[in-house]
Amino acid sequence: MNHCDLTLYLCTDRHWLGDMSIAESVERAIEGGVTLVQLREKDVSTAQFLQAAQEVQEVCRRHGIPLIINDRIDIALAVDADGVHVGQTDMPCAIARRLIGPDKILGVSASTPEHARRAREDGADYIGIGAAFLTDTKAVGRALTRDEIVEVLKAGGIPACAIGGINEVTGPQLEGLGLDGISVISSILSRPDITAAARTMRDVAEKIKG
Amino acid sequence: MNHCDLTLYLCTDRHWLGDMSIAESVERAIEGGVTLVQLREKDVSTAQFLQAAQEVQEVCRRHGIPLIINDRIDIALAVDADGVHVGQTDMPCAIARRLIGPDKILGVSASTPEHARRAREDGADYIGIGAAFLTDTKAVGRALTRDEIVEVLKAGGIPACAIGGINEVTGPQLEGLGLDGISVISSILSRPDITAAARTMRDVAEKIKG
Repeated sequence: MNHCDLTLYLCTDRHWLGDMSIAESVERAIEGGVTLVQLREKDVSTAQFLQAAQEVQEVCRRHGIPLIINDRIDIALAVDADGVHVGQTDMPCAIARRLIGPDKILGVSASTPEHARRAREDGADYIGIGAAFLTDTKAVGRALTRDEIVEVLKAGGIPACAIGGINEVTGPQLEGLGLDGISVISSILSRPDITAAARTMRDVAEKIKG
Repeated sequence: MNHCDLTLYLCTDRHWLGDMSIAESVERAIEGGVTLVQLREKDVSTAQFLQAAQEVQEVCRRHGIPLIINDRIDIALAVDADGVHVGQTDMPCAIARRLIGPDKILGVSASTPEHARRAREDGADYIGIGAAFLTDTKAVGRALTRDEIVEVLKAGGIPACAIGGINEVTGPQLEGLGLDGISVISSILSRPDITAAARTMRDVAEKIKG
């Protein structure tokens, strides 16, 4: 199993950034304490996704932070990213593992114990459990309860972070569940001072771990 | 260079199909004389694209017709398709060639002599030249003139088909340009009898070749 530090896992979202490039936003977030970066792009061409991946990877490598590509294994292979994250409507986990090989990080979104079990069986290195809270970033039916998060976590039996609506107010509610970290988007990227926001969320993450 | 028969090259488009599956439409088209199939999907999830690719591939293999995947190299690798077709806003041709290896078919969309030259240099097996005519399928600024098509063709120096707005009325105007075939979508898939439409377009294709 490939290891990665899930403590503060940034998912990108270019819609928050205004004129700032994704790479610049990622660099500011890393300077505030992000431990892992996932490049997530929707509604852009493959060429645009590739360019963003190249730019973000340059930043991540310079800081020694692994880069995970959301969904698009072709992009991950093209830039030799450190891993791939697949959702339940993306490439099935077992095929993703075959395409990226045994040495790359593979993450899977899990909202049920069955998702989590299958992810482990099919070669995932970690699961992202959610939605932890309701969120504007992604339309989700409802948030999981604390008990449900724990059930998914236990069914997986592999490292896990929570994702969805986690900020400085909601995040502390995840303490004591056994999570390895939190995955965040807007609570870092929507803030005027991205580095300070990442520092705040890193403190939250350290407290809820374990 | 990998060979494929460009004579009548079907690009799929699920929007024309109503209740019919893509695989069924492809099978009917093959029965009418399609020589090559490109699965082109936009605005679907990776899982949906993968499922369509698996279903269409089953049909193509049964009929001995190669299957090319549009844009998504991850899908092509997942199903071990016969090749990939990339546009000018997709994965760059040279990276596509590296990812799929030397033995898969690689096609590139070209609307200028420079596109065509670079496609050949970067490892393409064929080019799709367009738009040959104005079309409803894809928003294009304008159609190429006959002279422009010939310029792109000569600059490429590799097998070439024309694409864009080609039907039983416009197709015959492409005779004598030196094309290896025509790529069609709606002139087959929008018709009530797909097999008959493919038969008609195969006749058109045979006449314009050479």
